[in-house]
Amino acid sequence: LKEQAEALCNGARECARRWWLPATSGNFSFRSSAEEGGRIFITASGLDKGSLTPENLVEVDLDAQMVAGEGRPSAETRLHGVIYRDRPLARAVCHVHTIWNTLLSDRFAEAGCVTLEDYELLKALSGVDTLRRREMVPILENSQDYVGLGRTLEEALRLHPAIHGVLLRRHGLYTWGESIGVALRHVEALEFLFEVEGRRLRFAD
Amino acid sequence: LKEQAEALCNGARECARRWWLPATSGNFSFRSSAEEGGRIFITASGLDKGSLTPENLVEVDLDAQMVAGEGRPSAETRLHGVIYRDRPLARAVCHVHTIWNTLLSDRFAEAGCVTLEDYELLKALSGVDTLRRREMVPILENSQDYVGLGRTLEEALRLHPAIHGVLLRRHGLYTWGESIGVALRHVEALEFLFEVEGRRLRFAD
Amino acid sequence: LKEQAEALCNGARECARRWWLPATSGNFSFRSSAEEGGRIFITASGLDKGSLTPENLVEVDLDAQMVAGEGRPSAETRLHGVIYRDRPLARAVCHVHTIWNTLLSDRFAEAGCVTLEDYELLKALSGVDTLRRREMVPILENSQDYVGLGRTLEEALRLHPAIHGVLLRRHGLYTWGESIGVALRHVEALEFLFEVEGRRLRFAD
Amino acid sequence: LKEQAEALCNGARECARRWWLPATSGNFSFRSSAEEGGRIFITASGLDKGSLTPENLVEVDLDAQMVAGEGRPSAETRLHGVIYRDRPLARAVCHVHTIWNTLLSDRFAEAGCVTLEDYELLKALSGVDTLRRREMVPILENSQDYVGLGRTLEEALRLHPAIHGVLLRRHGLYTWGESIGVALRHVEALEFLFEVEGRRLRFAD
Repeated sequence: LKEQAEALCNGARECARRWWLPATSGNFSFRSSAEEGGRIFITASGLDKGSLTPENLVEVDLDAQMVAGEGRPSAETRLHGVIYRDRPLARAVCHVHTIWNTLLSDRFAEAGCVTLEDYELLKALSGVDTLRRREMVPILENSQDYVGLGRTLEEALRLHPAIHGVLLRRHGLYTWGESIGVALRHVEALEFLFEVEGRRLRFAD
Repeated sequence: LKEQAEALCNGARECARRWWLPATSGNFSFRSSAEEGGRIFITASGLDKGSLTPENLVEVDLDAQMVAGEGRPSAETRLHGVIYRDRPLARAVCHVHTIWNTLLSDRFAEAGCVTLEDYELLKALSGVDTLRRREMVPILENSQDYVGLGRTLEEALRLHPAIHGVLLRRHGLYTWGESIGVALRHVEALEFLFEVEGRRLRFAD
Repeated sequence: LKEQAEALCNGARECARRWWLPATSGNFSFRSSAEEGGRIFITASGLDKGSLTPENLVEVDLDAQMVAGEGRPSAETRLHGVIYRDRPLARAVCHVHTIWNTLLSDRFAEAGCVTLEDYELLKALSGVDTLRRREMVPILENSQDYVGLGRTLEEALRLHPAIHGVLLRRHGLYTWGESIGVALRHVEALEFLFEVEGRRLRFAD
Repeated sequence: LKEQAEALCNGARECARRWWLPATSGNFSFRSSAEEGGRIFITASGLDKGSLTPENLVEVDLDAQMVAGEGRPSAETRLHGVIYRDRPLARAVCHVHTIWNTLLSDRFAEAGCVTLEDYELLKALSGVDTLRRREMVPILENSQDYVGLGRTLEEALRLHPAIHGVLLRRHGLYTWGESIGVALRHVEALEFLFEVEGRRLRFAD
């Protein structure tokens, strides 16, 4: 667990350095194995992720109820729980706020999703072995009603079993993976492709 | 005080690394508690903030008169004083020059303000608990007459009790908070939203 | 060899820091001298290049057959072999995925190449001593058939003896040099010019 | 001298980190005081400035003739000499290649100069104490004939006694100052304003 906590914090500090977790926003978590209790270890609310350490993680169950640790879990912990329930193989969830995911989540809100296609880097997504893959990233309307938002997220996860991430409009990206390394790789790959798509749009103007 | 001075300098060095304090520009300050004298500790004029240390802070009173320290306070110390007088809860003030705040301060000068709305990251602003908040950032005409500029700033602060920052046209952002951490969080959140708004404009072209 | 391995890893870590090797993408290699066996030492597949060390290199022959090391060589090792065969003086090959090389590789795909001309920085390319040089970077259609892609690359290298790099569409840049330092210099120079060209296009709109 | 050499190298490494000296391009120098011989200490040709140390500086006279040190002076040393001759107070010269100076040097080539006006950051330029200042940065056609280019530079310096920098078209910026710190401050201020102007153009489209 200690090793996983270190890996998660390293990843979060690196994302903070890239300004993907501005102003204490965003949250990262991992889930312990079933033998270890299947608990969620998530960044406590309101911290600057640039100096995150394992002590800044709190332990919660899948219903987002606090088990151990100092600080309080973010209100968005519920969304992490929804992802872990619906994706039994997911062992880590990353949520980042970036310039380009914010822009695309708004630009394509009416279309309902960002579509990524024909990029070599799509092969960085778990289980994708062909760049011909049409990868869809659904966009959900943002809300402060986390119960309602949790339900919308659950529906999206069920409707789209092959997706690797979800955008909340004018808010940020949720992505996950079967390990901390894979979840971080998904952040990098999706954010790279969001920036490429965002800049490409303006060539086409 | 030592701890606060360290926190302010860490924040300034990080902002310098992001090129938000180019060419010795910008200045950061904190105010000691009433019991400690209610003095302003502000970065001395003309320093490269990338290597700022607590020794580079000078102590002044609310009228920007030097009390202690080496170096001289910036001419803009007066503006920090105006903010501390008008916002009794403010304990830190940050002033940064960035590419995007410079651009938006000019682009929206005639409108008189930048308006930020419906972004999740607005919740990083102190006291804002809903993203439906319409956050206004007034734009003041820049000037070298700091007495006159101080008066204009005072008026803006009184006219708009709920704002978290003010832009000086083609100059930079002033923001503040009830602690050093909050003021730095406001810098990050506002600059993030300025860049998003700036880039969004061109999608809409 | 140890020194070369260190130099290659330093360069890769620096490129990773610039986000030119996102999400474990890209691969770097060097070729030992004929006296040392003329073997290729290439980054193992699937690693985060931000923390690359010499132990993460695998040794292969020019046919991309594994000789020594832990991990497996990337499927793209074959393309490195093609370059080393066709460019006997090349001692290092760098392959990076960047925002701007991805954008230009798509924008100019129909033209078949990106053309760079009249830039001082062209003189950073090996053997180019005049900025009047018209430098062509051919664009090849991307594919997952690495045998076919190897053949296409071979043809491009033979058809254009003076080129310093090749773009794969919506995938990335291959460049090389007579030493590790020169190959890394070519990455920097070509990526700089790709970004300039990409941004210049929009001025011209 | 040792202290100045360290300051110059620190500045160059920082500029390299920002990708302002890509692919071994650019060169920095300082001039020793008259009592110390009035010699130029300049970065040797062909080095990666990201790891520059004082040993990488070579000593030349104002005619660019080698006096001491290892490596060879850049062909552009002549241009440094021209600046030091024509600006007797200049004690340091910085030459950087950046995305935005390359773009503006081309975009405004026919106008013959970039004009910067009404920016607070203009006050970072030595001797400028009003933001109403209209700062002109002349653009010279680039050339490989360094003798001819030196003459053109000399004419520009004489014609425009108040300028702080000169752009070579599709090549880069030369700027200087009465100390190393001031020259580096000029790099930062001018590059900041070039990026603002470049991005502003596209708002105005």
